[in-house]
Amino acid sequence: MSDLDLTRFSINQMTVKQLTLPELATACRELGVPAVGLWRTPVQEYGVEAAARLVRDAGLTVTTLCRGGFLTAVDADERAAALADNRRAVDEAATLGTDTLVLVSGGLPPGAKDLRAARERIADALTELAPYAEDHGVKLAIEPLHPMFASDRCVVSTLTQALDLAERFPAHQVGVTVDTYHIWWDDTAPEAIARAGVQNRIHTFQLADWITPLPEGVLNGRGQIGDGAIDMRQWQGYVEAAGYTGSIEVELFNEDLWARDGRQLLAETARRWAENVEV
Amino acid sequence: MSDLDLTRFSINQMTVKQLTLPELATACRELGVPAVGLWRTPVQEYGVEAAARLVRDAGLTVTTLCRGGFLTAVDADERAAALADNRRAVDEAATLGTDTLVLVSGGLPPGAKDLRAARERIADALTELAPYAEDHGVKLAIEPLHPMFASDRCVVSTLTQALDLAERFPAHQVGVTVDTYHIWWDDTAPEAIARAGVQNRIHTFQLADWITPLPEGVLNGRGQIGDGAIDMRQWQGYVEAAGYTGSIEVELFNEDLWARDGRQLLAETARRWAENVEV
Repeated sequence: MSDLDLTRFSINQMTVKQLTLPELATACRELGVPAVGLWRTPVQEYGVEAAARLVRDAGLTVTTLCRGGFLTAVDADERAAALADNRRAVDEAATLGTDTLVLVSGGLPPGAKDLRAARERIADALTELAPYAEDHGVKLAIEPLHPMFASDRCVVSTLTQALDLAERFPAHQVGVTVDTYHIWWDDTAPEAIARAGVQNRIHTFQLADWITPLPEGVLNGRGQIGDGAIDMRQWQGYVEAAGYTGSIEVELFNEDLWARDGRQLLAETARRWAENVEV
Repeated sequence: MSDLDLTRFSINQMTVKQLTLPELATACRELGVPAVGLWRTPVQEYGVEAAARLVRDAGLTVTTLCRGGFLTAVDADERAAALADNRRAVDEAATLGTDTLVLVSGGLPPGAKDLRAARERIADALTELAPYAEDHGVKLAIEPLHPMFASDRCVVSTLTQALDLAERFPAHQVGVTVDTYHIWWDDTAPEAIARAGVQNRIHTFQLADWITPLPEGVLNGRGQIGDGAIDMRQWQGYVEAAGYTGSIEVELFNEDLWARDGRQLLAETARRWAENVEV
């Protein structure tokens, strides 16, 4: 891949989840991929300290850790457990050497119908988590998820909602994740990106393409960059006009892609990234 | 069902599509259901004039005809064909005796990535269609569809976007469809409903509940009223505070419901409706 400028490319571990962490590190080194976004479960399985050593020895930057969150519980014990788990996520991010923990807020509790109240519980939880994160050198990045996840995964559906939450805290504690997959349909998102940029709250910028038909459960239907309906350069333009200069991470969940050879998929993803962003 | 006040209930034909049109008319009469929303394809198969006679003889009000739209084509021939088809839809609505034609705007043409340009083509098309509809006593009701349909079915994803289009025309020509399924996640929708109400642009109010997991293709995953995450009374409150006093139509697309006995499903839907709205 020596013909490509991958300086700002980051591969999210989930995109190539068929690779073990050592396989991922090796493939990144051989293909010239400089950065990775990591996920907690595979990192925990490998061992957090060992994973930190592995990526450090491979010369990889860790752009993000995915993910904390799921902070909408009403039950006091569940809420306490979620907060404890999020503090562990902050610890893991610090150990891995990344300053960005992505938060997926959580859906409605069983039987609940009040999205606004659920969002308020997230704000409550952040009051405890944000200072803890700051103490560990970690910023929280609230990720709005596509409205099709509003009931079961994330009650924060737009960048504006994410910013409304983030703005209750200092920008170095809480910002947002801008992921094309979740916001591409939203004609108010460019304005929200500008607002986030002025406040230095764009903590990470992620790409996935929108393809249809969506699979059952809709979680694993993200398209390879360039295969779908999203104009990546346009969204890159919005975040860069808002002052974002960091990595551009590709995060795909897709059963068809996962069925393929992981190293080849990583190479394809790097090439698609380079073809679809302005480097 | 004589214990229920169904005065404002309307059953959309698709909810019980296992029933033929005569079966639907008979079941409505027997169950005390006063109104139906009809769909073009089954009506055309039965014959538009014959369908009009059937529902008139059964004493049924036709609240809406679904649907016109699909107005995003770039190709001149495709655009002309879409306009001609929409004029036929207006004619059919007039024949059936309803004053409301629901419009599903259409998705992105193959390979296109520009949602804004697609929305402008809808506005262009409405410039031709809206006066034609007025001449036939029919109002067009732009339906924002959930953002998960933005690429392949409807580039109008929010009530605000629908109103931005509708406001280019007089309210008696173009208004909006408020359907809980498509907008329930949107915290800006209540304000948009108020805006629509002031302008007399709420041309129909439809209910479906939000349940997960979504099925493959996501089209036929709408939940029976009361089974999901949507607070129906809250949305009824918004449209009524905005001055809406018309029928409240239930429109479900759901394979599990379609596999059941249609008459029993209609009875269940009427009961669920009465339990979940304020009559």
